Amino acid sequence: MSAMNRKLIQNLAETISKQVKRGNKTEAECLIRMFNRLLEEHIVPGRAVNGLDRGLFRYILHNTFGMTDDMMMDGVFRAFDKDNDGLITVKEWIEGLSIFLRGTLDEKIKYCFSVYDLNGDGYISREEMFHMLKKSLIRQPTEEDPDEGTKDLVELTLKKMDHDHDSRLSYADFEMAVKEENLLLEAFGHCLPDAKNILMFEQQAFQDPLQR
Amino acid sequence: MSAMNRKLIQNLAETISKQVKRGNKTEAECLIRMFNRLLEEHIVPGRAVNGLDRGLFRYILHNTFGMTDDMMMDGVFRAFDKDNDGLITVKEWIEGLSIFLRGTLDEKIKYCFSVYDLNGDGYISREEMFHMLKKSLIRQPTEEDPDEGTKDLVELTLKKMDHDHDSRLSYADFEMAVKEENLLLEAFGHCLPDAKNILMFEQQAFQDPLQR
Repeated sequence: MSAMNRKLIQNLAETISKQVKRGNKTEAECLIRMFNRLLEEHIVPGRAVNGLDRGLFRYILHNTFGMTDDMMMDGVFRAFDKDNDGLITVKEWIEGLSIFLRGTLDEKIKYCFSVYDLNGDGYISREEMFHMLKKSLIRQPTEEDPDEGTKDLVELTLKKMDHDHDSRLSYADFEMAVKEENLLLEAFGHCLPDAKNILMFEQQAFQDPLQR
Repeated sequence: MSAMNRKLIQNLAETISKQVKRGNKTEAECLIRMFNRLLEEHIVPGRAVNGLDRGLFRYILHNTFGMTDDMMMDGVFRAFDKDNDGLITVKEWIEGLSIFLRGTLDEKIKYCFSVYDLNGDGYISREEMFHMLKKSLIRQPTEEDPDEGTKDLVELTLKKMDHDHDSRLSYADFEMAVKEENLLLEAFGHCLPDAKNILMFEQQAFQDPLQR
């Protein structure tokens, strides 16, 4: 049984789908129902219930979207949690998922940049790149310094993407580089679901709501 | 010291770069030098030396291109080893890498299809999909049958990609689906390097050949 009644969900779906680009009312309704189910299934006495907290959200990112990197999952939480109050509200949930499932390249560029801008200052710095890339390389047996490969990769990435040569990536740098070479969209870590996770999620979320 | 002299390498680079689309003579030369170094470094008495065998090639896929899935690495070997003689010759090496590093979407679609067509019969069957997707899903704690999620995913993928409804993917099915939704290119497993591995490889391969 849902925490909201049918009419309420329909109204909310209509309002939110108008606010979200490419909003589809039926899909929004399904996502609201899923959000409610998630909250109901994970109610812990004393915990806030008007949104998904970091722990529950990470559980979903891991189980449903196959994400494994802690730093990326924290970044995705920050990118979804637009008002930075530590909870993903139903509107933030639908907005975030609309990028995951139906995002244009422009929306995905904005989203990935906000995930990778760890301290939210509007730039991806050398240090931020280093932190994100550190665990992603297989260490070469010939290297003495365990950070050598990562340091090299940071410099190569700057050479490739830092168009204005200020040793950090602005949004404009990032956007230009990704539009030239789409592979660079997830240059600093996987923060978007892949095809199979999208298919499975859609199956779970968008089957006939009357059956749930 | 190289096994071939400078003049020989230049001639070979010229010949191969004419045969490979978008062939770049300087890059081909660098890739030949790298190929020769790899052979020299890994000579084992009694082993063939005119090509990279499966073991050495997998070592490179793992260490240089960050691949971890055995089934995918075997598929990549098959796709590179066009004459199916169990060795990657210098020409096959350059042709394969030209897709890894500079491939167009069309070339990548052909390449991925040949990796995913495990038995080489021109179709990706239900069974082949099942094998490739089996290890890629995180098992849901609620499932009784450990294969349930994979079976669902195979059916969803067929629904999405099998345009002619014969319960298997022909090349035409695969091509049409990927052109509609590029994310489906690597639907059955990661068999192309990501941006960071490409950057690191290019750095290693294409630095001034006189310095090596």
